Order: sequence, then structure tokens, then C-alpha cells
Amino acid sequence: MPERVFGHIEGHPEGSRFESRAELSEAGVHRPLIAGISGSERDGADSIVLSGGYEDDEDLGDEIVYTGHGGRDAESGRQVAHQRLARGNLALAYSSTEGLPVRVIRGATLDWVYAPRSGYRYDGLYLVDDYWQAEGRSGFRVWRYRLIKHPSVPMRVGAASDVSATYPTPKRQEARIQRLVRDTAQARRIKALYDYECQMCGTRLEGLAGPYAEVAHIRPLGAPHDGPDTPDNILCLCPNHHVLFDKGGVGIGEDLSLVGGAEGRLRVHLRHRINEEHLRYRREHYRINP
Amino acid sequence: MPERVFGHIEGHPEGSRFESRAELSEAGVHRPLIAGISGSERDGADSIVLSGGYEDDEDLGDEIVYTGHGGRDAESGRQVAHQRLARGNLALAYSSTEGLPVRVIRGATLDWVYAPRSGYRYDGLYLVDDYWQAEGRSGFRVWRYRLIKHPSVPMRVGAASDVSATYPTPKRQEARIQRLVRDTAQARRIKALYDYECQMCGTRLEGLAGPYAEVAHIRPLGAPHDGPDTPDNILCLCPNHHVLFDKGGVGIGEDLSLVGGAEGRLRVHLRHRINEEHLRYRREHYRINP
Repeated sequence: MPERVFGHIEGHPEGSRFESRAELSEAGVHRPLIAGISGSERDGADSIVLSGGYEDDEDLGDEIVYTGHGGRDAESGRQVAHQRLARGNLALAYSSTEGLPVRVIRGATLDWVYAPRSGYRYDGLYLVDDYWQAEGRSGFRVWRYRLIKHPSVPMRVGAASDVSATYPTPKRQEARIQRLVRDTAQARRIKALYDYECQMCGTRLEGLAGPYAEVAHIRPLGAPHDGPDTPDNILCLCPNHHVLFDKGGVGIGEDLSLVGGAEGRLRVHLRHRINEEHLRYRREHYRINP
Repeated sequence: MPERVFGHIEGHPEGSRFESRAELSEAGVHRPLIAGISGSERDGADSIVLSGGYEDDEDLGDEIVYTGHGGRDAESGRQVAHQRLARGNLALAYSSTEGLPVRVIRGATLDWVYAPRSGYRYDGLYLVDDYWQAEGRSGFRVWRYRLIKHPSVPMRVGAASDVSATYPTPKRQEARIQRLVRDTAQARRIKALYDYECQMCGTRLEGLAGPYAEVAHIRPLGAPHDGPDTPDNILCLCPNHHVLFDKGGVGIGEDLSLVGGAEGRLRVHLRHRINEEHLRYRREHYRINP
């Protein structure tokens, strides 16, 4: 078995068409013949196929909400159990943590505007922006992943095929995108209220141009969460606790106690009113490392 | 004086032309009549004018290396002293830390392909990706800023003009770009070597999908630094120390002692050889908070 390739596959640029899963597999664009997720828990996921298998998937073109696998009855295809964060599901979560690009292939069985009329189409690279748990239409808990189209130029035909070369963006740009955080005026006011101290650990980072903190939204912005960009949904955190908060390393209990990889309670300024509904939403959708 | 506006100015979309600095100022696109940087140390910089005043500026279109102000003789315009990280220079550094968009205006006096033939042209929003010190052609130390074109859609004509509305990207997308780090295979090997422990503090963050660490390049990638993406130029850091390292909060001395906001020495694995040349380059170009 050749090494797993993250990024474009040589000779198969974005838009390439395939007749069948066998042809996709042969090309190395999506190797498994049946599974929708190609990947391993150790390496991450390198490709997925959208073929309408899950009732809860959403396809907005440059943005996809994809449902993980598992918990379905082999006969009927119906969801009959909760999904676990294992196998392909864990692989996609790992790809999110590591920022690995995932090849997205759309199949014709989809009843969506972005689906091809026949066969399969390779639609380029996406990044796993976030993942969370939700109750599917079946009533069972499923893992959901938001994939965002990779902001890169399409592969040049004939590019080299080793792992690093198939990364679609020049390396320098990869390193750059990292901390281009654009905060709203709202968010900056919350940081000023806390004088840039982390609400979880009290850390205050000081650089040449002044202090640095980040804001985290308790109920995430954007569909399907649609959390508001208002002070009652915003926390001022150091980058470490922001990462832990976003990646299931720390959570906030009902009494504002910190759960998981942090101790004590969330520090809340007298003039900062946090909405309990948003905290509840967070607890229900974002699992914490036990 | 109206409040400083970050982002597009209503009625003046990207590509707008102006006859003179007076007209630019009247429009609110770049308010100072003489200074190249508009901004304050407290609020950040909202706009700059590129007009060829500095011999060390570089203009690659979507990427600009801009020289700070100060240290020039009023009569001859020649650099006669070191530049300080104060006033407009500090304002640009603050914009970098906070991720604020900067309006870029190009003047016809530039001898560059991207300059307009006459007058001034508003060329849209840029983000201050990085800043460092360098010896200018004059022999004096200047501050330099890398500005990257903001990956946004141009302003719709007639958009509202309050600060948050003039942010060009939908809010949800702003929050998202934050941690889309795309590491190379090289970088992932270094993180594995340290088992995701920070080389400055030993912290190891653990999320649902496994551990999380970031890599920092000692000599930055990309022009003008052109550091290599090789293990001898890479550190494994926690997000907090990555921010401190990038923003002048911590540095590495010749004996690998940590300088600034951290204590002790850099932890280096026996199988990880760090290039002293890269460390020296870093010390010479990235000042540390005293």
C-alpha cells in the first residue's frame, strides 16, 4: 500500500470525473471502495465521498457539513445507535487538529445542486474547520464536521506527487495564515475588560506591541450553530486555553467550574454577563476529553 | 474628528482614484496630509500610503514590505538615525497583533509596476502579517512590515460605514481563519519527536482527537527572510509560547537561554539539531520586549 497522500493526486486535478468507486480507488483519489471516509486514526483523513448516505449532511458548495460514520444498520442503512469518535470519525478530527487538507469527491446519487449528473467528481481540497456532536434526525447522536474549501490555487497539472509537494499552497503562505485573527470591535472590548488576562488561567501574554489575548465564542458563529457575536457569548482566553476549549480539552460546567484539562472556575468580570443558554449549547454539542 | 474606521470607507471602493493627498484626506481614506501611516499607538493603524519615500520598500502587488517612519533628515529625506517602535510604527505593530485591516493607497511617485500613472489609488485592505528590524541600505536600523492582501471580497458599493460593518469578510469567516494551520510532513515529525511538548515550557495540550502543538520557524519562511522548512529551523511550541516568540515576548539567547517572558532554557531533543545561524538571524531581526 503506497503512503497516504494529503493534497491533490498527480494527474487528477480538481474537476476530474470518475465513472465508479473502483475508478476513484484506482486513481488514488479515494482509495476505499465502500467507506465514505479514507483515513486512519494515526495519520488523519485524506479524502471523503459525499454521496447522500447520511440524512443530516449539508452541502453549500464551498462549505459542507458532513456526518461521520457508524451506528447504522447494515440492512436498512438507518441510524440505530450513537456514533463514536473512532476510526474515520477520529481521523477527520485529527485532520482538523493538524490542519490537513481533505480531498472531497461528490457522487451523483446526491440530490443537491453541487452534485455531478453522473458518476463522481473530484472537487478539490477542504479543511476540517470544526467538529461537534449533534442529535441526528433519527434521534441518535452523530458526529458532524464542517469542511471549508481550501483557499488555494488549483493544482498545476503535472505537479510532483510527494506529500509535501502536493500541498496546494506555497509553504510560506501556509505558515502565514495561522494567526490572522480579525476581531470585531465587540471582541476587543471584552479583551480590554479583562486587560488581556485569560478567563481560565489568568495568563497575560505581553509582546513588543502590547498584550495579546484571543476571544472564543461559546456557541460558535455560523451555521448550524448561529451563535451571536455579542459579549454574552464571548470569552477572553490565552491561546492555549482557546485551543483546549475548541478541541475538547476543557469545558465549562453549570457552576462555571472548569472541566477536563484545567482547574478552578471560569473568572467572570462583574460587568460581563455570560448567557447560560450558550454555555448549555456548548456542553450539549462539544464533548470534553474525559 | 470622527472615530477611526478600520476597513473600507463608504463610497470609496477598491480601485477608487484620488488626485491628491488633500482629496484622500477629505474622503477619509487616508486622513493625514503628510504622514505615510495613519493611526495611533492605542487604536492601531487604519491606512498607509506607498509613495516611494523609503528606499527599502518592496511591492509585489498582493504582498508589500513596507518600511516604518522616523529617523530621516527633514531636509534631504535621507535616513540619519535608527527608527523607533513608536507612533505610526507601533500603530502598525498593534494592527498586526489585533489582526486589523489596513487600507493601502499607492501613489504615482512610485517607480513600480503596481503604482498608478497619476495621483493616488485605493488598493483595498491588507493585514500586517509580520514586522521586524533590519539594517536599511543607509546602514541605520529600520522597522519593516509585511502586508498581505486581505483575502476578502471587495466592498459592495453603499455598504454601511460603522466599524464592524466595514469589516469586509462575514464575521463567521473571520473567526474561522484563525487556526487553519497547514503543517508540512517535516513539521509533524518534529512535533512527534517532542511528543507535542513545548520546547519552552513543557506544556502538552490534549484534546479529543489527541495532542496539539504548533511549529514555529526560527528564521521565518518567505522573502525577505527565506528561512528553510527544515528540522534545524523548526521549534515545537505550545500556542502561548508560539505567540510570544512571534510577537517579541520571548527570545532565545546564544546559550539557548530564554529571554523575556519565559524562564530557563530551550529544551532540545538529542536528535534535533538546531542551526545556530538561524538563531542568530532571529536575534538580529526580532527584538524582544525588555
